[in-house]
Amino acid sequence: MVAVTIWNEFRHERTDDDVAAVYPDGIHETLADALEDDHAVRTATLDDPEHGLTEDVLASTDVLLWWGHEAHDEVTDEVVDRVQERVLEGMGLLLLHSAHYSKVFKRLMGTSCSLQYREDGETERLWVVDPGHPIADGLGESIELPETEMYGEPFDVPEPDRQVFVSWFEGGEVFRSGCCYRRGNGRIFYFRPGHETYPIYENEDVRRVLRNAVDWAAPTEGAPRTFGKRD
Amino acid sequence: MVAVTIWNEFRHERTDDDVAAVYPDGIHETLADALEDDHAVRTATLDDPEHGLTEDVLASTDVLLWWGHEAHDEVTDEVVDRVQERVLEGMGLLLLHSAHYSKVFKRLMGTSCSLQYREDGETERLWVVDPGHPIADGLGESIELPETEMYGEPFDVPEPDRQVFVSWFEGGEVFRSGCCYRRGNGRIFYFRPGHETYPIYENEDVRRVLRNAVDWAAPTEGAPRTFGKRD
Amino acid sequence: MVAVTIWNEFRHERTDDDVAAVYPDGIHETLADALEDDHAVRTATLDDPEHGLTEDVLASTDVLLWWGHEAHDEVTDEVVDRVQERVLEGMGLLLLHSAHYSKVFKRLMGTSCSLQYREDGETERLWVVDPGHPIADGLGESIELPETEMYGEPFDVPEPDRQVFVSWFEGGEVFRSGCCYRRGNGRIFYFRPGHETYPIYENEDVRRVLRNAVDWAAPTEGAPRTFGKRD
Amino acid sequence: MVAVTIWNEFRHERTDDDVAAVYPDGIHETLADALEDDHAVRTATLDDPEHGLTEDVLASTDVLLWWGHEAHDEVTDEVVDRVQERVLEGMGLLLLHSAHYSKVFKRLMGTSCSLQYREDGETERLWVVDPGHPIADGLGESIELPETEMYGEPFDVPEPDRQVFVSWFEGGEVFRSGCCYRRGNGRIFYFRPGHETYPIYENEDVRRVLRNAVDWAAPTEGAPRTFGKRD
Repeated sequence: MVAVTIWNEFRHERTDDDVAAVYPDGIHETLADALEDDHAVRTATLDDPEHGLTEDVLASTDVLLWWGHEAHDEVTDEVVDRVQERVLEGMGLLLLHSAHYSKVFKRLMGTSCSLQYREDGETERLWVVDPGHPIADGLGESIELPETEMYGEPFDVPEPDRQVFVSWFEGGEVFRSGCCYRRGNGRIFYFRPGHETYPIYENEDVRRVLRNAVDWAAPTEGAPRTFGKRD
Repeated sequence: MVAVTIWNEFRHERTDDDVAAVYPDGIHETLADALEDDHAVRTATLDDPEHGLTEDVLASTDVLLWWGHEAHDEVTDEVVDRVQERVLEGMGLLLLHSAHYSKVFKRLMGTSCSLQYREDGETERLWVVDPGHPIADGLGESIELPETEMYGEPFDVPEPDRQVFVSWFEGGEVFRSGCCYRRGNGRIFYFRPGHETYPIYENEDVRRVLRNAVDWAAPTEGAPRTFGKRD
Repeated sequence: MVAVTIWNEFRHERTDDDVAAVYPDGIHETLADALEDDHAVRTATLDDPEHGLTEDVLASTDVLLWWGHEAHDEVTDEVVDRVQERVLEGMGLLLLHSAHYSKVFKRLMGTSCSLQYREDGETERLWVVDPGHPIADGLGESIELPETEMYGEPFDVPEPDRQVFVSWFEGGEVFRSGCCYRRGNGRIFYFRPGHETYPIYENEDVRRVLRNAVDWAAPTEGAPRTFGKRD
Repeated sequence: MVAVTIWNEFRHERTDDDVAAVYPDGIHETLADALEDDHAVRTATLDDPEHGLTEDVLASTDVLLWWGHEAHDEVTDEVVDRVQERVLEGMGLLLLHSAHYSKVFKRLMGTSCSLQYREDGETERLWVVDPGHPIADGLGESIELPETEMYGEPFDVPEPDRQVFVSWFEGGEVFRSGCCYRRGNGRIFYFRPGHETYPIYENEDVRRVLRNAVDWAAPTEGAPRTFGKRD
């Protein structure tokens, strides 16, 4: 069974009544609920010691999910180093919504990860542009979300290895909303949907994508990664 | 000066009054008008001998533009072979709009090149998703076309080497509308805009893209392409 | 269990004593032997009716292996069309050694698939350049083959989606010897090793790669591939 | 004329007689000599104030070359931030030889950039695997360097956008020795050849590659990179 750790900043939910109304136990618990039937799930949050991401926790994690928004800068560089190293060794990583601006994503991409946005409750339609990708298993031709925050291009990331979704927004924008990368042995998936006041993670299609993406991102056995001086 | 050959099926314009009203001299002449200030331009059409694409014409062409729609099957395999061979040697190729279904594009892609479509005069907005690409030089953040035929995903092509544009359509769809490929030494650009009854090729931004794409697709000097038995 | 069909030209083995000495039952039987412990394996050959690749056989095949050399041209275009269509629908395809020049590979790549070669019994070392790829599972840092035919660059194929192996040859050449592609929903792997008179397919590492590649290339469930007119 | 800044650590040359014998004025001056006929060339070194890479210098640089080896850690994070930002805006960047371990390359790649090595004066042959790439203009099928330090796979970098060279080494290894990337609007080229005691930068083919790569990496005009809140 794939060992999943869900990391959540867990600040909005404790300070903002509107957020608490949608995610009373924290976004991490809603994400856990989507995954725990067929994955071994743990959670960790910013205010835990070492943000809950000790060497031991990461060493026993196959796939890490990351949700953060207002406190990206409070994540220590030591933990960012640790996450990066584990990804290069093979740990999968899913970055959700505003995690595009997290230190771990920027570290692994090498770019600013900037984008355009508008918070206006618009309809989003995520089109499957790669219907043969395992992250799209069991979906229809698109996922429709009635009320979302808009994210628009340009999105300052390296060209994805594989583009799974492209979003259409009611207000006139598009966004590359499902992007696959490999860094070292690790598989990385950026998935746009999710917001603290829209109940996006209750959507069945979104939950299906999360399960698919975790399974896709799980490490493979691999061959040796041996570096340094050679005889 | 880059030597350009513009190939047009040139059938709609001679049989359909609505098309003739928009492109009285043929789509190829409007395309030529967009390019001839700073390129050496020739044209060729389906009903010319060898479709106007003799060995000599192709040998002296740096970049070939292709517009076809209702008569893809009338293009002979011999001419398709010839175009493919020249692309592999380094000739650039621009496929416009319904040329997604041309024999030459399908030959070079290896896929069905199918898509979804709706002819309803909708607004299209082409977002620049790769603002550092030379094909986007001098554009704004997007190109707006007030009335177009919709093309929607999935688009059955290999993952592009580089995605320059993604289109938003009023009716709710998205499309990868500017796709770069390399096959052999040749540069290939598929560009969605263009239709026989909407005057898309009069649009200044579209014309700018055509000029940029021709310059991007022009052959480089290169290194030897030597194949076969080796001592 | 993944349903595998192994296609072999099966001519050398019946006309050349040196080949028959190495592969007395045909290359397809040696390949079958490498796979049949954990896959459902069938074989098909050029001289079977419809080359053994009827609609029914292909419809029930998850992954097709292809070995051909001296009779590429005898494969009918009808069967090539059929294989291409099934790959676009999701069937996996492994092209082995001289199958780089097969009609099916050239059809799916859109290029000449040419290369340089020298038949001199040289040592080849295939380096794993992507140790996180499932096709490399369980290998060491490289695979060494004491006697092989050399294949050298340039190799006229589209840039691979993922490069798993790069070969070193004793005589001074290199070759991209393990190349991954996606076309439509289908996964394609070109794997260089294999020859009619060197017993390459007896090598345990090579057999491991074949098993890994079959599992990697097996179809996923996917999302709809719906094309055509849309309301 | 493309404005080039050549950055060199410039330490070996001042402390090691063997290096000084090969590069008496510093590696940067030999590189400058290769480029200055048709480029506007400046140089900068580690021990200059702000390492010679002030805001003004970078703002007026089209393409930056980087050579470092024993003092990567002495480069301040402030200068690394500044270089990264300029690359995302469009400045080209060439990383030479041991610069694979520079802070700027690791920052932009997001990986460890580790590799295997052996310092044994072996012959290297760099094969052109992409003969249609402008960086290969005017070369033969390969570049031969009689005495080099070996670099071997695995090379822990993201899959290159485009692979131009693959190296063969006498001792049995291979290496992806010419790798193209885009990050933001900037073009990045990693080029393996170069060493402090072998006179690699005197080689005419290597100098040709440097000139080609500078021209390839020069910024394009581009479209707007506008981020943030949108109406």
